[in-house]
Amino acid sequence: MSELFKRTHLCGNLNIKNVEEEVVLNGWVAKQRSLGGLIFVDLRDKTGIVQITFDDTIPKEVFDQAEALRSEYVIGIKGIVKERAAKNPNLPTGEIEVFAKELVLYSESETPPIYIKDDDNVDDNLRLKYRYLDLRKLKMQENVRFRHQVTKLARDYFDENGFTEIETPILIKSTPEGARDYLVPSRVNQGHFYALPQSPQLFKQLLMVSGCDRYMQIAKCFRDEDLRADRQPEFTQIDLEMSFVDQDDVIEMQEGFLQRLFKELMDIEIKTPFPRMTYDEAMERFGSDKPDTRFGFELKSINEVVADTEFKVFADALAGGGDVRGICIDGGSAKFSRKDIDKLTEQTKHYGAKGVVWIRVEENELKSSVNKFFSQEQLAEIAAVFGAKTGDLILIVADRTKVVFDSLGFLRRHIAGLLGLLDDQQFNLLWVTDFPMFEKDDETGELKAMHHPFTHPKQEDISLLDTAPEKVKADAYDIVLNGVELGGGSIRIHEGDLQAKMFKVLKLTDEECQEKFGFLLEAFKYGAPPHGGLAYGLDRLVMLLSGEHSIREVMAFPKNQNAQCMVCEAPGLVEEGQLEELGINLR
Amino acid sequence: MSELFKRTHLCGNLNIKNVEEEVVLNGWVAKQRSLGGLIFVDLRDKTGIVQITFDDTIPKEVFDQAEALRSEYVIGIKGIVKERAAKNPNLPTGEIEVFAKELVLYSESETPPIYIKDDDNVDDNLRLKYRYLDLRKLKMQENVRFRHQVTKLARDYFDENGFTEIETPILIKSTPEGARDYLVPSRVNQGHFYALPQSPQLFKQLLMVSGCDRYMQIAKCFRDEDLRADRQPEFTQIDLEMSFVDQDDVIEMQEGFLQRLFKELMDIEIKTPFPRMTYDEAMERFGSDKPDTRFGFELKSINEVVADTEFKVFADALAGGGDVRGICIDGGSAKFSRKDIDKLTEQTKHYGAKGVVWIRVEENELKSSVNKFFSQEQLAEIAAVFGAKTGDLILIVADRTKVVFDSLGFLRRHIAGLLGLLDDQQFNLLWVTDFPMFEKDDETGELKAMHHPFTHPKQEDISLLDTAPEKVKADAYDIVLNGVELGGGSIRIHEGDLQAKMFKVLKLTDEECQEKFGFLLEAFKYGAPPHGGLAYGLDRLVMLLSGEHSIREVMAFPKNQNAQCMVCEAPGLVEEGQLEELGINLR
Repeated sequence: MSELFKRTHLCGNLNIKNVEEEVVLNGWVAKQRSLGGLIFVDLRDKTGIVQITFDDTIPKEVFDQAEALRSEYVIGIKGIVKERAAKNPNLPTGEIEVFAKELVLYSESETPPIYIKDDDNVDDNLRLKYRYLDLRKLKMQENVRFRHQVTKLARDYFDENGFTEIETPILIKSTPEGARDYLVPSRVNQGHFYALPQSPQLFKQLLMVSGCDRYMQIAKCFRDEDLRADRQPEFTQIDLEMSFVDQDDVIEMQEGFLQRLFKELMDIEIKTPFPRMTYDEAMERFGSDKPDTRFGFELKSINEVVADTEFKVFADALAGGGDVRGICIDGGSAKFSRKDIDKLTEQTKHYGAKGVVWIRVEENELKSSVNKFFSQEQLAEIAAVFGAKTGDLILIVADRTKVVFDSLGFLRRHIAGLLGLLDDQQFNLLWVTDFPMFEKDDETGELKAMHHPFTHPKQEDISLLDTAPEKVKADAYDIVLNGVELGGGSIRIHEGDLQAKMFKVLKLTDEECQEKFGFLLEAFKYGAPPHGGLAYGLDRLVMLLSGEHSIREVMAFPKNQNAQCMVCEAPGLVEEGQLEELGINLR
Repeated sequence: MSELFKRTHLCGNLNIKNVEEEVVLNGWVAKQRSLGGLIFVDLRDKTGIVQITFDDTIPKEVFDQAEALRSEYVIGIKGIVKERAAKNPNLPTGEIEVFAKELVLYSESETPPIYIKDDDNVDDNLRLKYRYLDLRKLKMQENVRFRHQVTKLARDYFDENGFTEIETPILIKSTPEGARDYLVPSRVNQGHFYALPQSPQLFKQLLMVSGCDRYMQIAKCFRDEDLRADRQPEFTQIDLEMSFVDQDDVIEMQEGFLQRLFKELMDIEIKTPFPRMTYDEAMERFGSDKPDTRFGFELKSINEVVADTEFKVFADALAGGGDVRGICIDGGSAKFSRKDIDKLTEQTKHYGAKGVVWIRVEENELKSSVNKFFSQEQLAEIAAVFGAKTGDLILIVADRTKVVFDSLGFLRRHIAGLLGLLDDQQFNLLWVTDFPMFEKDDETGELKAMHHPFTHPKQEDISLLDTAPEKVKADAYDIVLNGVELGGGSIRIHEGDLQAKMFKVLKLTDEECQEKFGFLLEAFKYGAPPHGGLAYGLDRLVMLLSGEHSIREVMAFPKNQNAQCMVCEAPGLVEEGQLEELGINLR
């Protein structure tokens, strides 16, 4: 092993104040070049880059060594900080350079298969395979450090507020509902399997029954789902639960956390309390239970205005108990051609919409895709609902209510994106509350829990459980940032009889209840406190705050779209003997 | 749901300074009794117990409600703190009581299957099944909280010292060596398996290659081993790694951590630097690489004194390259009868010893189990090696060196225990360094890595790798507390060629290297910094500091001896369809 130079400073921290200091630095060669008898090395560590200069005042063997340096060689240097003659304003350390006196080479590098620069646009799988090189990029180092700061701040804040971090087990029992479990065959109890937790939900509720009072954990969770969109097989939650609280208590605690997070890590003042909006209001106004409130284009119902229409699409929607709603894009008429609108219509089909009706508000005329069916007066009446003015574009969807909301919810956000209205320096936090307790399963038509079956119904709706369960609202709440759900939670049921009734509404047999949740029901027999909590998706939270567009950018070793770890090549083949010990065979 | 009383205080925090304050408390009824027209309730939360008194000044319905309270009911009360007439010095809150004015019942409780008191000596499996009740015990609450404080302090300390907490993946590749892996069948890549990590070793080394510089993680680790002794299928490490460091740097960083841990959480001053002892010295003096230095009874060799003996047991041991060593128990002669020594001898057989020779130093005589073979003069010569005095007991083992060390190492600690010399208020921390790089595999006789194959050999021993690898010492170090290994680590190999040589000594083929560690070797091609680290067994650390004798006492939901979670009944059966999706069958 080469001699070790004991570091005195980190590269990125040097500045004009260090001039004339003797410093020792360790790091990677980002670049080496010779110019006018001098050798310049950009030396990089996790904090940044500083220029090292080798001149002819140093021993020839050191100079020669410096001449042989190549990118990604790992070196240490001792030298003196000097003010630069030609300053580099693009580099934080650009006012200085370090004149090297000594040099040690720790290790060489072959030519790396990917460039170590932030804006390198390389294939994702290559980046993931050489993640240890990808992580050398300063932006990735920043992300790693920022994620650490978020978790550190979370732990500090909740510790100060009396929370205890408690580890819940990773090897638990499989409950086949919700997402698919990862299974772990047991060797000691052959034929039996552990499951990896989708969340610590049941255990954190048990901790409340245990009197732990305030629990937090930054917890690994697992879901064996297909990785469409930006999902990962293993992901991380900031998981929280409190006893003897109501919804306001939980919300207030979280607002304190988020306020501090934005203040300390983003230097942004967020006012509390955050706006709150019921689920119904969010759907009515934004067509989404995670409304992005950074821009307008709110939904309006034109059910009343078109109640007597003969236009079949509208009439059918209304007759079927559906809706006719639309959004108005300010000044949108000039910005969206016929072709653009066709494209939007096409995209809206993913949400079930069979078409989009448009109205352009022009100087002297209202043009519309449904001119044939509506008079100018009728169109004006519709436009008036939106308060539309000349130059605006109205887009209307008529269908089942869910399709209308989903389609318009998509359209307003998508259009805002096209128009550049999604300001990623603006952070609109809000609570969505009063979620429905149940939703209809698309396939079976049966009611299922919208959040989960431990969610407490709103006190005033409990009597509806017997008569009209679909109308029951829950003490459930989501925290939404710019149209993305950062986290969600609820007050839980702590009453055994109410929990039993809930399972009954969900048509679980006694046997199923016992099999799946028996231990929770058993625990509730021995004194359960009122409790509630919340969990944040840490990956998503860090992604949003750091301005990244994929959670993979804020995870050190994410899996690829096939759930593979490209670094260690997992999953892999195992030896027959391993399977034998576990009592399993490949099919 | 009952009305929620918003808590103003925690039960255990109330004291004489709160007298006359109106307080609101929530908690569990630990005990309820009527006496002289009053009702007394011991109310418990995680902080402790306080006495609530109901008298006849309150409305009758509240009094009646209080009368109906039973153990483990969950209640809230509003009341006034009063100084007690008859103070209870055994209770931290014993100087006061709270006169209740209002009462709310949150939930009732059936008679709990285990008592909620610290010293309840109930069956372990029952405790684990009703863990949520077991955790209500104040001692368990203290343990849970203490564990939190240890991890919090670790995170604070290492954060202040520039470490970044980075999550490494849980779904990784199986490397069938060391302990047995837990496997996770992949659904997407059928026939392939993930493994759960036994430690984040390879990933933390990759993070050093990534330039992350200082990594920490409180990491879940998994080993599918039989649960003899005090092991758990899932356990937790405080895992650390640093770049550009040597052994002294790592040790100094850890001493700062442990010093602060003892100071802040135990109010104990520990001096730094801690004592250091080479592996060889530890074995010679204590017969163990984790010496307990709280007491004497150090090992002495009598090889020279008995070199010419005709006593076959000694002669054979020496002739076979083995050893004759012993320990001297101060004043032990009177404390251990012949029968006691027989029992010790029996126990020593677990360590391979075929017998134990004893010498009692009496006033005028040296009595011994080998009187026949040794003259009084010869026995006196042996006794002199130990500096034995009248009343002492010498115990000698002759065998292969490993058996001698293991047996005497066991005897000295076991006897110290019997004699009450293991003071659990004394904390002797020390470093054991310079471990052998390799040890012989008992079964195959081949060399295997004593720590792991990434451990850096000592610089001066590298040349021995070719000629006498069994003599090579490593830059490996363990931190030992009172005879227990708290953690261990090493400086790692960062030179690709040295790593390759190491694999060669271990007789790994190129193909095996590539299969098992290919990604690390590949990473080393692109500029690896010198690095090293350490990992603490968190469960054991917390156990020792909290004075517990099993790691199960410091884990919220441990598994039982059959690797089962008694709370959720994992592992369990799964549905055939789940196995089908994973492409596996039960054998």
